[in-house]
Amino acid sequence: MDKEFFTISCFSNALIGDDAAVIDKNVYCKDLFCEGTHFKREWLSPYQIGQKAMLVNISDVIVMNARPKYALLGLILPKNICEAEILELSRGINDTCKKFGVSVIGGDTIAGEKLGISVSMIGELLGKATLRNGLKKGDYIAFTGELGKSLKGLKTLQNKGEICANSRFVAPNLKDKFFYKAAKYVTSAMDISDGLATDLQKLTKASKKGVKMIKKLSLAQLKSGEEYEALFSFSPKNLAKIKHIARQTRTKVTIFAIATKGSYKTHAKSHHF
Amino acid sequence: MDKEFFTISCFSNALIGDDAAVIDKNVYCKDLFCEGTHFKREWLSPYQIGQKAMLVNISDVIVMNARPKYALLGLILPKNICEAEILELSRGINDTCKKFGVSVIGGDTIAGEKLGISVSMIGELLGKATLRNGLKKGDYIAFTGELGKSLKGLKTLQNKGEICANSRFVAPNLKDKFFYKAAKYVTSAMDISDGLATDLQKLTKASKKGVKMIKKLSLAQLKSGEEYEALFSFSPKNLAKIKHIARQTRTKVTIFAIATKGSYKTHAKSHHF
Repeated sequence: MDKEFFTISCFSNALIGDDAAVIDKNVYCKDLFCEGTHFKREWLSPYQIGQKAMLVNISDVIVMNARPKYALLGLILPKNICEAEILELSRGINDTCKKFGVSVIGGDTIAGEKLGISVSMIGELLGKATLRNGLKKGDYIAFTGELGKSLKGLKTLQNKGEICANSRFVAPNLKDKFFYKAAKYVTSAMDISDGLATDLQKLTKASKKGVKMIKKLSLAQLKSGEEYEALFSFSPKNLAKIKHIARQTRTKVTIFAIATKGSYKTHAKSHHF
Repeated sequence: MDKEFFTISCFSNALIGDDAAVIDKNVYCKDLFCEGTHFKREWLSPYQIGQKAMLVNISDVIVMNARPKYALLGLILPKNICEAEILELSRGINDTCKKFGVSVIGGDTIAGEKLGISVSMIGELLGKATLRNGLKKGDYIAFTGELGKSLKGLKTLQNKGEICANSRFVAPNLKDKFFYKAAKYVTSAMDISDGLATDLQKLTKASKKGVKMIKKLSLAQLKSGEEYEALFSFSPKNLAKIKHIARQTRTKVTIFAIATKGSYKTHAKSHHF
């Protein structure tokens, strides 16, 4: 058992285990975004760090079928960061919040050795919550967008190459417009943060189901983490509706599996920094 | 302008600036509790670290006149922490949550160099929120408990001495029973985390008032941070009621100043690790 899994097991309860916790009409989530674990400072500008810290949390709220509303920030600022960098970091945070209608309502700031951002996000459900445990036998399983680009960006950075500001590794492209419209037909959902194979294992475990793959995917598609595309399922009877919403919102949707009885275990290692 | 102040100024809005943000009937706050900034690992056991991380956040909720309900945890675990220590840390967190009726509803765990805990707390208002900006001219200003012990504990630790498990530096003694009963008479409040003088300056600045000191306090009382006692004000007409609640809940209350026109500026440096 790894330490992360052990730690989670120390706090186990019925509210924990989805992308966000659902209480009444609200959802609550928290993701850390830290130098050394999620990025190197030479890879991302302060603006991009602020932007991505918010996007990974907003992503969790969206795949619950909730609109992000409020954020609390915990900032660990290294001693060598200057005011111009702090300003850029805050601009990345504030611009992203504005784009998604989020207000920063509080937080805490301390000095530390490495840059770290802890974000807690509060969202408001738009309808029923789309949980991980709702996958039904026979459901189609699909993902939005294209997978593999985040891993490609990461590898380029690790090989000291340069990547564009619109690279998926820098700026995940959240599919909120598609997801909010599709949500009423969605039986289960989560975002792809650890890689499709690893996240599919989490989804099927929560739903106690297996999968039959109906489309050949590349290793890069299966392993690439930090994609922040939506992994979701729906009944075949709603296929036409999902396809219509995909066209309407110009969102690529790839159906790659059907839920079966049993369980699913991947051997693909998740791949993110 | 120091970096903390500059950073806060980058996120300024009307919801920010109190112990917690008030939205409808709820309050939201977030405090970091990190090795190197707030404690050394040789000073506190993993249990005590978990306990204090929760208490400092619960304190913020209480002085808003709200009951803590839910917590989100961000844990940065150093590579050399073992499972027994993680278990103790989680016991400190879970026991404290149980004592105050808090449920941990989610969070995130990563590996890092130093132990860090980011806590976001959601509370439910029990009546009107007790804000920092409600101090009126002529109000009595008071604090609960005794001040100075936290600083004494810290100094002992810094001199490589040992302190008891019930030292104020290890385990703040929150005055929830007193505060919830007194709240209806309280005109302004905050907890004492940076030291009485510094926090009084924050309170009077938020309320645009000055103070006349009516009781001589020691430097230790004025400077000792991390006390997590309540600093609060009330109208002289409610003095008998406040005294009655203090007796009823066996809470020491020291009235030390009266609010005046003008402003208050301290030269006492706040003193915490």
